[in-house]
Amino acid sequence: MSVKNEMIKNLNEKECLEDFQTLQNKKELASSWFKELRDKICNSFEDVENKKMYKKRKISFDQNKWERDGGGGGIISIMRGNVFEKVGVNISTVHGEFSNEFRQQIPGAEEDGLFWASGISVVSHMCNPHVPAAHMNTRMLVTGKGNKKKIWFGGGGDLTPTFKDIKSSNIFHQELKNTCDKYDPSYYPRFKSWCDEYFYLPHREESRGVGGIFLDYLCNEDWERDLSFIKDIGLTFLNSYLKIIQNRLSKEFTQKDRDFQLVKRGRYVEFNLLYDRGTIFGLKTGGNTEAVLMSLPPKVSWY
Amino acid sequence: MSVKNEMIKNLNEKECLEDFQTLQNKKELASSWFKELRDKICNSFEDVENKKMYKKRKISFDQNKWERDGGGGGIISIMRGNVFEKVGVNISTVHGEFSNEFRQQIPGAEEDGLFWASGISVVSHMCNPHVPAAHMNTRMLVTGKGNKKKIWFGGGGDLTPTFKDIKSSNIFHQELKNTCDKYDPSYYPRFKSWCDEYFYLPHREESRGVGGIFLDYLCNEDWERDLSFIKDIGLTFLNSYLKIIQNRLSKEFTQKDRDFQLVKRGRYVEFNLLYDRGTIFGLKTGGNTEAVLMSLPPKVSWY
Repeated sequence: MSVKNEMIKNLNEKECLEDFQTLQNKKELASSWFKELRDKICNSFEDVENKKMYKKRKISFDQNKWERDGGGGGIISIMRGNVFEKVGVNISTVHGEFSNEFRQQIPGAEEDGLFWASGISVVSHMCNPHVPAAHMNTRMLVTGKGNKKKIWFGGGGDLTPTFKDIKSSNIFHQELKNTCDKYDPSYYPRFKSWCDEYFYLPHREESRGVGGIFLDYLCNEDWERDLSFIKDIGLTFLNSYLKIIQNRLSKEFTQKDRDFQLVKRGRYVEFNLLYDRGTIFGLKTGGNTEAVLMSLPPKVSWY
Repeated sequence: MSVKNEMIKNLNEKECLEDFQTLQNKKELASSWFKELRDKICNSFEDVENKKMYKKRKISFDQNKWERDGGGGGIISIMRGNVFEKVGVNISTVHGEFSNEFRQQIPGAEEDGLFWASGISVVSHMCNPHVPAAHMNTRMLVTGKGNKKKIWFGGGGDLTPTFKDIKSSNIFHQELKNTCDKYDPSYYPRFKSWCDEYFYLPHREESRGVGGIFLDYLCNEDWERDLSFIKDIGLTFLNSYLKIIQNRLSKEFTQKDRDFQLVKRGRYVEFNLLYDRGTIFGLKTGGNTEAVLMSLPPKVSWY
C-alpha cells in the first residue's frame, strides 16, 4: 500500500466523535499556531534581510488581507529585499462547501462537501543563486458534518537549490529527520519518499529540487501530539533554512550563475502550474489568486 | 449548440471512406504545406530581424530536429534577436496510438486510439513591449483505422499586446475576417467567439490577449477547399503580423514598459501551463517537451 493510501485508510478508520467545543478548541489551537509561526518566520527573515541592508530604509514584509467569498480569509505577507528577492508567507483559515467536482477527492467531503481548513505556506526565492529556494506548508483540515468529522494535518517542506549543494541538502534533511524521529522512526523515510515522488516533473524527467518531507492525512489517537509534530516541522524548517542562508549568503556569483537560476526557476513554475495540487485546487475552487500564486518566482527565464 | 459541439457533430456525420492512396495524398499535401509555410515565416522574420540588425553577424533561426518514440517527429526553429526576443516555429508530423486516458477525448480515437497528426505552430515574443506577441497554429488530424477514418483541420491565430493597441488588434481581426468571409460568412463570428472563450484565464478574470480566431474539427465535403482555408489562415497571420510589427517597431519604450511586458508574459505562462489543451496534452502524452514549451516567453516576472 502506498504511503498515501495507508494514511487515508488510517484517517477513515478513525472518524472522531467530537463535541462542538472540543473541535472548536482544536481549530483555534491550530490556527493560532499558524499565526504565531508566521510572526516567527517573518521576524527572522526581516532580521536576515536587514543585516545585509544596503539602504537606510528597513526592509520588511507587507501584509495584504483577503476575504473568501464562501467564508473565511487570509493574510499574504510578502517581502522583497536584497537577500530575499521575493518571500511570501500566507496564512489562511477558510470554510465552506466543495463543489461537486472536488468532493470525491477529499476524504470526508463526499457526502456534503463541507470543509474547514487552516494553514500556513512559505515560499522564498533568493537573490543569490547559491542560496536555495525553499518551501514549507502545514495545515489542518476538517470535513464532514454532524458528529462524523474527519480531522487531519498535512504539510511538509522542501528545498530547491540552483546548483548542486550537498551541504545545504544534508542540513535540511538531517534536521527534518531528527524532528520526525522524535515522533515515529517510520515518519522520515515515508515522508521523504512521498516528497520525492510528489515534487517530480515527468515531462523533464527531473526533480523540482532536493526534496525534504511531504505528508497528508496525519491523524493519530493523540491529536495534541500530531499538532506538536506539525509545530516542530515549522520550527525545524525555519531553523535549518536560517542556517543554510547563513552558510551560503556570502558566496559570490556571476551573471551566468544568475541566468541559470532564472532558468531553474522556470522548472519551479512548470511544476506549480502543471502539477501542484494546492495551486490547481486553489485556482479552480475560487481560492485567492494572489495568495495561491504567491509561490511564483519574481523573475524567470525560459531558454 | 456550442460551436465546438456543432463542429464535432459535423465531423461525426461524415466519416470518410478513403482509399489508402487518397488519404496518403491528403497527408502529404497538408504536411508539405506546413513545411512551406514554416520556410515563408522564418524567411520573413529573418528579413525583419536583419533590417534592424545591430551586429554584423546575420541573425537567423536555429533548427533542432526531434523524433517521437511512438512514431514521427518534428523540427523546432528558434530565433533570438533584437526585434524578436524569442520566436519559435515548430512543424511536426507524428502518428501512433493514444493512451486509454486520452482516447475518449479525441473524436474517432475511442476505439483503437490510432492517430496521425501534422501541423505548424508559431509563437513570437518581442523585445519591444509595443509590438504584440503573436501565436498561430494550424494542423490536420486523422483518427480511426480501416475505412472509417475521421479527417479534420484545426488551428487559429491570436494576438497578445502588452498595452492597449486598437490599431494592431483591428488589422489582425480585419484581415482574418476577410479571409474567413471568402470561405463562409459564418466562420469569422463563430471562430472569433471560440477564440475569446478559449484564451481566457478564469482565475484572473482576464483574456490572454485581444483574440483572433480559433477552430477545430473542420471537415467539409470539399477537403481541398478546407486545406485552402487553412493555408490562407497561415498566410493571413503572417501578412497581418508583419504589418503590425512594421507599425510598432520604432515606438520608443521605457524600463517601466518593459517591466510591465514581463508581468503580462506571466499571464501567458499561466494560461499555457494551466489551461492550454495543446500544452497539457503534449506534455502528458509524451510529446517533445522542448517543442511543446517553445511557446514560453524568454523572460517573465511575477510581482
